Amino acid sequence: MKKVAWIGTGVMGASMAGHLLKAGYPVSVYNRSPQKAQAMASLGATVCSTIWEAVAGADFVFTIVGYPADVEQVYLGKDGILEHIETGAVIVDMTTSSPALAVRIAEEAKKKGVSSVDAPVSGGDAGAKAGTLSIMAGGEEDAFLKVKPLFERMGKTIVYMGGPGYGQHTKAANQIAVAGATAAMTEAIVYAKKVGLDPQQMLNAISAGAAGSWQLNNMAPRVLRGDLAPGFYIKHFIKDMRIIRDEASSRNTSLSMLNAVLSLYEQMADKGMEDLGTQALLKLYE
Amino acid sequence: MKKVAWIGTGVMGASMAGHLLKAGYPVSVYNRSPQKAQAMASLGATVCSTIWEAVAGADFVFTIVGYPADVEQVYLGKDGILEHIETGAVIVDMTTSSPALAVRIAEEAKKKGVSSVDAPVSGGDAGAKAGTLSIMAGGEEDAFLKVKPLFERMGKTIVYMGGPGYGQHTKAANQIAVAGATAAMTEAIVYAKKVGLDPQQMLNAISAGAAGSWQLNNMAPRVLRGDLAPGFYIKHFIKDMRIIRDEASSRNTSLSMLNAVLSLYEQMADKGMEDLGTQALLKLYE
Repeated sequence: MKKVAWIGTGVMGASMAGHLLKAGYPVSVYNRSPQKAQAMASLGATVCSTIWEAVAGADFVFTIVGYPADVEQVYLGKDGILEHIETGAVIVDMTTSSPALAVRIAEEAKKKGVSSVDAPVSGGDAGAKAGTLSIMAGGEEDAFLKVKPLFERMGKTIVYMGGPGYGQHTKAANQIAVAGATAAMTEAIVYAKKVGLDPQQMLNAISAGAAGSWQLNNMAPRVLRGDLAPGFYIKHFIKDMRIIRDEASSRNTSLSMLNAVLSLYEQMADKGMEDLGTQALLKLYE
Repeated sequence: MKKVAWIGTGVMGASMAGHLLKAGYPVSVYNRSPQKAQAMASLGATVCSTIWEAVAGADFVFTIVGYPADVEQVYLGKDGILEHIETGAVIVDMTTSSPALAVRIAEEAKKKGVSSVDAPVSGGDAGAKAGTLSIMAGGEEDAFLKVKPLFERMGKTIVYMGGPGYGQHTKAANQIAVAGATAAMTEAIVYAKKVGLDPQQMLNAISAGAAGSWQLNNMAPRVLRGDLAPGFYIKHFIKDMRIIRDEASSRNTSLSMLNAVLSLYEQMADKGMEDLGTQALLKLYE
């Protein structure tokens, strides 16, 4: 059976690597904070204390880490993946990261005879746990097809979107739509509260029509019962929106709604609320 | 049978009054542009050339006109509805208009022994034609209950939201959510096009998850096939968003996303595109 290395065993990564272990793949894991990797041992993972140990002999190297700077470090940094990986392997970054960086990693990988896939996901911790993620993949199509059986252990909707970076571009478009829908949900509730309209009654009245969205149906109830715990962290949403702003900007495009929502979340981070869930945006108006 | 006066027989009003005629109500119609009212004669309406003729002896007076200034004029202006209406009648403004104006009209009506309901709708021209509108009503509850059987001829979802102005407030919350979702849909497509991602493939990949919305499902396909015809006019959306901004502002609240979207649509109006449908926002980025 193909040998897997998994770098990054946070909430998402641990569940995703767990599905591969359950499917019988031998998985070597590495995490910057070792205790999070250690927890994978009971599931049968080989826990490694360096990237190079994890990567040695691997057919597939998966990564899901925090920020683009971390992605860059684990792939291109000193003692990183591309220094130690074997020719013929496939690397798969599942972090939501920069499309431009995905292209750069693909180019560097190619020089080493390695194929690259960028494959960010949506569906959150619940989707990772249940193996029902949406996986948006870019890269060489034959490399994607090699990884697909492993993706099928982690996700339900697996789409190939084009060359290197196009998985990231699709996730970016997803985050733009999430930004608008989240702000829409938030400001509708803010307005209702300010004018003395019962917010739940308002949601019942508007959710079935042109105002309707996944955010209204799924996040608004959390907001109304005061549940601001992170399904998706504000700090990560800010990271995503900055990437999108920069990608748009490098194409002489300004996304005004996205910029307005980014600015709201940056204000929340300034007030020390970056570890709350994105639905906490309401607090900024209070 | 109760006698109905209907003021405003534009695209929405003509369909809505038509449902009352079909249900057997005697309906007197008035429209500022007489030829639009004239078209109602073939459906059995009594076409009137003044408001006072239409209103004489009416148990219910419905209005659906363009702007708050028009609402104010037809109700409170010289030779307007409240000058000629009979004690005991119910007035029902279905224009999307100002909550503050709805409160003022209710107060003036009360002085004449007249009950007032503010009942804006969502569902557009298609919903008006099919009799499937969502109707959000505010005002005295007993007046609402008197009008309800007539609302049931025009709409499918009929909700009572509270005292005078609360129908308008609910519609305002609806429009806030529509603004965010429309901008979300637009900027996701703009981004996809700029980076060379197939927009339809992108929509397929993201629509089922946290990015999903009625706008993505229903308006994005129109945008992609270049159909910018008004289901809902930009000029009317601007009117709605200005009302919302002012209502929020009078409560010391600023809705940043809403303001950003309003500003985008005002730029479209400045470029002479106010008679396009709201989905035409994409053109501003091209």
